Amino acid sequence: MDLLSALSLGELALSFSRVPLFPVFDLSYFIVSLLYLKYEPGAVELSRRHPAASWLCAMLHCFGSYILADLLLGEPVIDYFSNSSSVLLASAVWYLTFFCPLDLFYKCVSFLPVKLVFVAMKEVVRVRKIAVGIHHAHHHYHHGWFIMIATGWVKGSGVALMANFEQLLRGVWKPETNEILHMSFPSKASLYGAVLFTLQQTRWLPMSRATLIFLFTMFMVSCKVFLTATHSHGSPFDVLEGYVCP
Amino acid sequence: MDLLSALSLGELALSFSRVPLFPVFDLSYFIVSLLYLKYEPGAVELSRRHPAASWLCAMLHCFGSYILADLLLGEPVIDYFSNSSSVLLASAVWYLTFFCPLDLFYKCVSFLPVKLVFVAMKEVVRVRKIAVGIHHAHHHYHHGWFIMIATGWVKGSGVALMANFEQLLRGVWKPETNEILHMSFPSKASLYGAVLFTLQQTRWLPMSRATLIFLFTMFMVSCKVFLTATHSHGSPFDVLEGYVCP
Amino acid sequence: MDLLSALSLGELALSFSRVPLFPVFDLSYFIVSLLYLKYEPGAVELSRRHPAASWLCAMLHCFGSYILADLLLGEPVIDYFSNSSSVLLASAVWYLTFFCPLDLFYKCVSFLPVKLVFVAMKEVVRVRKIAVGIHHAHHHYHHGWFIMIATGWVKGSGVALMANFEQLLRGVWKPETNEILHMSFPSKASLYGAVLFTLQQTRWLPMSRATLIFLFTMFMVSCKVFLTATHSHGSPFDVLEGYVCP
Repeated sequence: MDLLSALSLGELALSFSRVPLFPVFDLSYFIVSLLYLKYEPGAVELSRRHPAASWLCAMLHCFGSYILADLLLGEPVIDYFSNSSSVLLASAVWYLTFFCPLDLFYKCVSFLPVKLVFVAMKEVVRVRKIAVGIHHAHHHYHHGWFIMIATGWVKGSGVALMANFEQLLRGVWKPETNEILHMSFPSKASLYGAVLFTLQQTRWLPMSRATLIFLFTMFMVSCKVFLTATHSHGSPFDVLEGYVCP
Repeated sequence: MDLLSALSLGELALSFSRVPLFPVFDLSYFIVSLLYLKYEPGAVELSRRHPAASWLCAMLHCFGSYILADLLLGEPVIDYFSNSSSVLLASAVWYLTFFCPLDLFYKCVSFLPVKLVFVAMKEVVRVRKIAVGIHHAHHHYHHGWFIMIATGWVKGSGVALMANFEQLLRGVWKPETNEILHMSFPSKASLYGAVLFTLQQTRWLPMSRATLIFLFTMFMVSCKVFLTATHSHGSPFDVLEGYVCP
Repeated sequence: MDLLSALSLGELALSFSRVPLFPVFDLSYFIVSLLYLKYEPGAVELSRRHPAASWLCAMLHCFGSYILADLLLGEPVIDYFSNSSSVLLASAVWYLTFFCPLDLFYKCVSFLPVKLVFVAMKEVVRVRKIAVGIHHAHHHYHHGWFIMIATGWVKGSGVALMANFEQLLRGVWKPETNEILHMSFPSKASLYGAVLFTLQQTRWLPMSRATLIFLFTMFMVSCKVFLTATHSHGSPFDVLEGYVCP
């Protein structure tokens, strides 16, 4: 019976890790990312006055993780923009988020139950990106532990790590803070996730990649859905950290 | 008769697209670029007190477009500096612009009729850079529309797109503005040109590359010469834009 | 007798240029670099409140030269982090410098006679880095004079050239100054060293690479030890510069 349940979990995880992300999950990723861009003070005025800058910011929000990972690994920083369909999809979401008549699109997707679904789907993409990033880095650097962790981390954190420069594009400059100084929950979780996936990739964690993706996705989805539902800016790690460094 | 005139236009365009840029046109590019650097407040004092920083700024003004395009396409950012003769030519122009006895060089090249000739020749280089940039990007990414447009755009706009960081090198920091927020005419025209050359490269614009280079150069030369002659900071696109977004 | 002494100098230089840098010399490099990080105002508080940011700054101080050189030459910017043992060694030094009980480690290494030994050994690493950097750049660009000089320079200057962005990571932003505007002695000496090694590499300086490494190391060691021992922030070049540009 136990064997059977283990088998079915393994099979479920495997099927889950093979679900294609494009277009549905990617779409959710773009929607939630651009929702957060719209929450930024001044973002709506920017889209009216300087649509080019607003669109470029939107692209950084949607594809920041690829840009940073490409920069780290010495690949063309605009490499991912060769996926014209992804860029067009993200551009369409940007247009609808900022310019939809009556703000209908924004009202629909920011309605909490709908938003929670998208938030959950965004986390699926995030975890998959971390896993793929570490696999890619491992391909180049077989024993580059730090490189694997760094690549996974930037793939998971995305635009947050270059928030200072994304703000600069919008004419805002806040040098006194940055994501490394004040890590948000997604960045911190991405870092821990990157460590786990690196351990798995180098065979120190006796678990299949699919299972780890499945379990870590479950963790991320439940945390983020809970945090979003309760409008909380805290982090489940706070308890643990308070215990370690009182 | 029509056929003949078309033939001769095609031939003229072809000959025009084969005129070598080095050294005469490149020289004009350097002269006009460094004139604009000298107009910047504080640039002359900088050249006296910190010649190394001034020279580095001058290099960014002359070769910024190559640096940015190399960064985007994942090539060594100082790749173009292997053309020692170009770098030496640009350094000579920098030296003459800032340190010529009696400021003779500056007085000569900023004399309006002379300056207009150089401005016209600079636009020839700009358009050729856009065309070459898009051809190069197309070689790497056959269907990378966005990559082609981006590469052409940075090749045309050059240092303007990294003005914030060029200023930082001189100890000036103006985060509240940047070229994306307030596009100047050359940046905007480069963007439109990049779109046109991308359409041409992907066979959507039924026109030979040489003809497009010729026509777009004529457009850029006439606009820039007119704007420079009238000391105008406006843009021929203003009328169009006012009509589209009132 | 002269021949014999020349021979023995050549042999000494050759043996010297073959001394492995890892781990002893590298260790000294990390110790001195992180001492300077600890001298920065706010660095100790940062290590307490934001250890992740402090560690990242420490890595920039230890490996900044590799990051910059990789960026210039279009290689993955985190390439050097594949040397896990170097990164672990640097991390251990960072931990001891900031978190050692009773600050014992800091007190030991900042005791002047001990510090002078480490400072001397750091210069050995710096000169070797310049030589290796230029050799590497020459491999890619046989006639790229400017590229060779630039690579050698960033390999010698390291984190100083990106001090603005290293400070930004710590939440400090000082746009009014940078290393190019106000070059410190090590940066200036690295630049002159890069020119010398480039001349040697391109056979314009009739001297073996080992001899130049030996002589330039002697120069750097004596200058830096003298400057550190006298707590001076001046530069031996000041006299020369005052003479050239009065």
